[in-house]
Amino acid sequence: MRKVLVTTVPFGDRVSLPLDLLEAAGVEYVMNPLGRKLKEDELAEMVGDFEVLIAGTEPITEKVMSRAPGLRMISRVGIGLDSVDLLAAKRRGITVSYTPDAPAPAVAELTIGLMFSLMRSIHVANVEMHMGEWRRHFGRRVSELTIGVMGAGRIGKRVLCHLAALGAGRLLVNDTNSECRLDRTIPGEWVEKDALYRGADIVSLHVPLTAQTKNMVRREQLLAMKHGAMIVNTARGGIINERELADVLRNGHLSGAALDVFCEEPYSGELSSIQSCLLTSHMGSMSADCRTRMEIEATEEAIRFLAGAPLRSMVPPAEYQVQWEGL
Amino acid sequence: MRKVLVTTVPFGDRVSLPLDLLEAAGVEYVMNPLGRKLKEDELAEMVGDFEVLIAGTEPITEKVMSRAPGLRMISRVGIGLDSVDLLAAKRRGITVSYTPDAPAPAVAELTIGLMFSLMRSIHVANVEMHMGEWRRHFGRRVSELTIGVMGAGRIGKRVLCHLAALGAGRLLVNDTNSECRLDRTIPGEWVEKDALYRGADIVSLHVPLTAQTKNMVRREQLLAMKHGAMIVNTARGGIINERELADVLRNGHLSGAALDVFCEEPYSGELSSIQSCLLTSHMGSMSADCRTRMEIEATEEAIRFLAGAPLRSMVPPAEYQVQWEGL
Repeated sequence: MRKVLVTTVPFGDRVSLPLDLLEAAGVEYVMNPLGRKLKEDELAEMVGDFEVLIAGTEPITEKVMSRAPGLRMISRVGIGLDSVDLLAAKRRGITVSYTPDAPAPAVAELTIGLMFSLMRSIHVANVEMHMGEWRRHFGRRVSELTIGVMGAGRIGKRVLCHLAALGAGRLLVNDTNSECRLDRTIPGEWVEKDALYRGADIVSLHVPLTAQTKNMVRREQLLAMKHGAMIVNTARGGIINERELADVLRNGHLSGAALDVFCEEPYSGELSSIQSCLLTSHMGSMSADCRTRMEIEATEEAIRFLAGAPLRSMVPPAEYQVQWEGL
Repeated sequence: MRKVLVTTVPFGDRVSLPLDLLEAAGVEYVMNPLGRKLKEDELAEMVGDFEVLIAGTEPITEKVMSRAPGLRMISRVGIGLDSVDLLAAKRRGITVSYTPDAPAPAVAELTIGLMFSLMRSIHVANVEMHMGEWRRHFGRRVSELTIGVMGAGRIGKRVLCHLAALGAGRLLVNDTNSECRLDRTIPGEWVEKDALYRGADIVSLHVPLTAQTKNMVRREQLLAMKHGAMIVNTARGGIINERELADVLRNGHLSGAALDVFCEEPYSGELSSIQSCLLTSHMGSMSADCRTRMEIEATEEAIRFLAGAPLRSMVPPAEYQVQWEGL
C-alpha cells in the first residue's frame, strides 16, 4: 500500500517545503503524472492503492472511492468541497480535511483586480493595443458604483472590506447564513438577493457551489441587473450559467463579466470569443504566499493523519449537511 | 474671428453639458474635425482664426501659435502642460488655464487597476484564455510587496492612500518638491530615487513630463530594479524610454510593465508585441465623472475669459519656471 497521492497541480512548485515535509516525515508520495486537473476516470484509475489524497478540485466521487479500497483520508488543498462527495466519504469512513482560511486573501485581491479591469475596460484596451488599435474607453470609478457581494464568508467579507477602504459608493450584501448578519465588521447594507441583482453596478459571487447555488445566476438574474452592469465570479464554475451569460453579454445588456472559474476546467467554450468577458484560469488562490500556505497546511494535515495525531481542520458537519440537503 | 476651437477628443460625448454651456453663453465653437489627437501641422493649419482653444494633449508650440495671430487663451482639459509651450504663450500674451484637480481620482484608480493586473498576470491570462490556452499564473499579493511611488502630487498621493488602505507591505516615496515631504497625510517612507528603484517590487510614475523627467527611466534605472519587478506609467509618455523598456522586458529582467501613455499617441510600437506589457490608450482621466468635470471646468474657464470675468485656474508661475529651467 502506497501512502500519498498528490493530485493537485501545481504542488511544491514555487516553494519546495510541502515536498520537504513529506520527505522529512518519511512519507512515500506520488505526484499527479498528468500535470493538470484530473478527470473522474483518470483519478479512478490512479487512486487504487493510496491511503491519502492531497487533492485539488478534481472529482472525488463515489466511483473514485469505490476504486480505492485503502483510501482513508482526503486532504483538500483549498476551501471548496463541491468536488468531494462528502456523504460517500463518510459512508466509507474516509476522513476529509481542508484549508478554509489560506486562500481567502489571494482570492479577494484577484476579485478586486478583476473589478478594476471591468470598471476601466483595461482588458479590452490591452487586447486592442496589442492589435494596433487605439480606442479610448470611458470607465467608471469605484466611488460612484454600487457593488453587490453575494456571500459574506471568508472571501466575500474581505472583498467588502477592500471596497470600503477604496471608498466604494454603496455596498450591498446577501448571505443565507444568518450569523453573518450579526457580524458588525462586515461593511454594507444587507439586502435580499433580488434587490442585490437589481441594485448593483457590479455583482460579485462568493458562495460555495452546492445544489442550492448551482445555476443560481441564470438569464433571469442577469437580465434583472441594470443595463451596463457587470458580474464577477471567482467562486466556482456552475454558479453562473455560462451559456446564458454568453447570450446576455452578446446582446449587450451587461457591459462586462469576469470569470476565474468554469463548469469544466481547463475551460474552452464560447465565452472565449467574447471580448468584454475577462477570463482567467482559476488563479484565485494562486498567489505565491497563499498557495504555499494551502499546500503546507494540507500536507501537515496528511502527515498528522498518517502519524495518528489529532487533525486541525477536518471538514465540519455543516458541510456534510449542505450536501445532504442537496440530494 | 471665430471664438472657440475644441481640439480635445472626446468632448461632450457622455454628458453634453460642456456643449450646452457654450451654447447657453452664445459662444460659437468648432469641434476637432479629425476626431483624434492632432499633430502639430494639423493644428497649425486649423488654428488660424480662433481666440480660444479648449485643448487636449496635442502640441501647442511656437509654430502653432505663430499661425494663430488672434489666439488669446488656451484652456487645457487636464493637468499636464508638457504639450503647451508656456514661454511662447507668455511672450505672445496668451493666457493658459488648466484643470489640475479633476483627473486625479480617475488616474489614481486606473493605476491601482493596472497594478493588480500586473501582480496577478490578469492581462496575460485573459489573452491566453481567449486563445484557448489554460495556464495558471502565480501572482503576488499587495501585502507582501514594496511599492515605490515617484511623484507625490495630486495623483501620486491618492495612489499611496489607496495602497495603504489595501494593506500594502511597504510604501516608498520620492518627490523633488520638498513641500511634499512635510505633508503628513502622505503615507510611505521618503527615499532617494536610487533607493526607490532598487527597493520596489512595483515602481509607479506620477511626475509631470519636463526637461528633467524626459527619459528619467532608462535602461540603467530599469536594470537597477529587482529581478521580476514591475513598472507602471500613467503619467506621460517619454518619462520611460520605450525602446529600452522593451529590451529589458524581452530579456526578462522585469516581469511586467503597464503603460497608459506613450511618446507618440495613438501608439503603435514594439511594446505591442510584448505580452507581459499591459497597454491602455491614455485612459487615465477617462472615467465618466472625471472626464465630465474636466470638460466642464475647462469650458467654464473659456467662457469666463471671453466674458472678461476673473479666471479660476490659471497656470501658476511655477509651471513656467519648470519650462524655463528646461531650456
